[in-house]
Amino acid sequence: MKLATIDNATRDGQLVVVSTDLRKAVVAAAIAPNLLTVMEDWDRFEPDLQALSARLNAGDAEGAFDFDQSKALAPLPRSFQWIDGSCFKNHLRLMAMATGRDPDIEMNSPYPLMYQGMSDDFHRPQGEIALPREEDQIDFEGEVGIVLSEVPMGTKAADAHRFIRLVLLINDVSCRAFVKREITAGFGWMNAKPSTAFSPVAVTPDELGPAWKNERVHLPLHVSWNGTLFGKPNGSEMSFSFGELIEHAAHTRKLAAGTLLGSGTISNRNHSEVGSACIAERRSIENLEEGGARTDFMTFGDRIRMEMFDADGASIFGAIDQTVVQYKP
Amino acid sequence: MKLATIDNATRDGQLVVVSTDLRKAVVAAAIAPNLLTVMEDWDRFEPDLQALSARLNAGDAEGAFDFDQSKALAPLPRSFQWIDGSCFKNHLRLMAMATGRDPDIEMNSPYPLMYQGMSDDFHRPQGEIALPREEDQIDFEGEVGIVLSEVPMGTKAADAHRFIRLVLLINDVSCRAFVKREITAGFGWMNAKPSTAFSPVAVTPDELGPAWKNERVHLPLHVSWNGTLFGKPNGSEMSFSFGELIEHAAHTRKLAAGTLLGSGTISNRNHSEVGSACIAERRSIENLEEGGARTDFMTFGDRIRMEMFDADGASIFGAIDQTVVQYKP
Repeated sequence: MKLATIDNATRDGQLVVVSTDLRKAVVAAAIAPNLLTVMEDWDRFEPDLQALSARLNAGDAEGAFDFDQSKALAPLPRSFQWIDGSCFKNHLRLMAMATGRDPDIEMNSPYPLMYQGMSDDFHRPQGEIALPREEDQIDFEGEVGIVLSEVPMGTKAADAHRFIRLVLLINDVSCRAFVKREITAGFGWMNAKPSTAFSPVAVTPDELGPAWKNERVHLPLHVSWNGTLFGKPNGSEMSFSFGELIEHAAHTRKLAAGTLLGSGTISNRNHSEVGSACIAERRSIENLEEGGARTDFMTFGDRIRMEMFDADGASIFGAIDQTVVQYKP
Repeated sequence: MKLATIDNATRDGQLVVVSTDLRKAVVAAAIAPNLLTVMEDWDRFEPDLQALSARLNAGDAEGAFDFDQSKALAPLPRSFQWIDGSCFKNHLRLMAMATGRDPDIEMNSPYPLMYQGMSDDFHRPQGEIALPREEDQIDFEGEVGIVLSEVPMGTKAADAHRFIRLVLLINDVSCRAFVKREITAGFGWMNAKPSTAFSPVAVTPDELGPAWKNERVHLPLHVSWNGTLFGKPNGSEMSFSFGELIEHAAHTRKLAAGTLLGSGTISNRNHSEVGSACIAERRSIENLEEGGARTDFMTFGDRIRMEMFDADGASIFGAIDQTVVQYKP
């Protein structure tokens, strides 16, 4: 089942069911007003949504219309919690080495690295990233993520799969100029992490077929910057499973229904073949291999696109496709 | 005007207006369903709430009932954003010195220290703090905080007062055993910060009279642990104003309506006279002055109470009064 949210002038948007090929959609208003409500009572709403999805895919859903990714909001335009891991240790190693931090702190840690993000306002998948200054070093970060129903405090990794309802793509927009100050203070990201973007469509794990394995997404994420492929690293090398991330996050708290949980920047050991999913990692590689960073951060007008394809080359989640612009008050 | 939220079996609770003396309340359902809705359109709802408040304080509100603090939920039982400063530099200096970190990093920083907290599930003011293990080093942190209407990205401190709608008290519950690992990783708090508690009542700044000055609360917070006064530090020594905190938080993002923003642990230079608002700070002082920490962290069954009084000795916000218990799945 594939779900999306379109604008209906409410803060949480209108839930729609999207066909597997992303061509058609149908409003799910008769079932639930929005996806946040669905997440809060998944077991109650899922059968009706699945039935509507089956009718839509059979070409048999009344009121079906052409799905326009460019008009979609984030599947959850806002949520009560957004937590992002940084769970590709290859990425952590490269970033630490390039910034003079001790890579062993994270490489040897049995705990996943994770931050609490702002969840009050997510970007639409295709539209503008408005930020005040180019000198804040605007970067993209390509990730995969999950949407959870309510996770009780103390949930263990082995049980966590029960709460994973949806999978989606993430552009974790970052302002790198603030990273050093904020990571040194140790309190996490405030200026360095503006609003985040999610793919137009969130899908139940079964839509990934064999690519959903060990609570990881075993597919490459295609990241293009201004129309040129920047990287296509594979989600399979995630150093912790999503279940392990859930256990870590839920040790001293519950996770509310609708919590979004990200993998962190996808990164592979064979980065010279597959490239990177963020500029900062490429700059780290350039620093290490070429003695200096050549690639600059984003400038106003730049475009970033992220998409993931199935074995037949069909887009699974639709595309994140954003343009960086200067914020005007 | 004083506002509170009572349980009506919805996730956001029922908004009530509370009398200045905290004795009476009246349901505000005819005006707005809950406080989150009010925050999202403050200017629209405020006049009707103020009128109801005036009738209640005149003994003239239909349906008024005895207000029972012990039944209140957090004014916002959940919100889309909770950000907490650590803006009493006296506290930062003591904590850094006791943990071997360089106190100059924060003492000389022109930027307030601040973390993104979990906002999906707040404790009720009077009830249980359920946590899995005493060895996670359970601590309280007494703070003041504000509730905001929507703050545009790029708002400056001088303009920020326009968005400060309500003031309240905070117990920023902490698990100190995780602090060292999480601050070293630099990504902020995950295990170290479970759910937070807020006072039964949130008040408009005018309710504080002259004690609301320079966007700070110039009153002592009375903190009692198991019935014994632990500290009564004054909010006046906050090293940044709430306006300055808003400017910092909003540099690369907007802050959604209903955002809660905390001061951090209240702490004064004359701590030998007024005591502390958290155990970790007292332990730091013991380490520095007595060569070792004598005060242990909380154990199951311990009770923590926080309250602030006006010049006439009347409680302004009602009391946070919580008991730590072992979490049972």
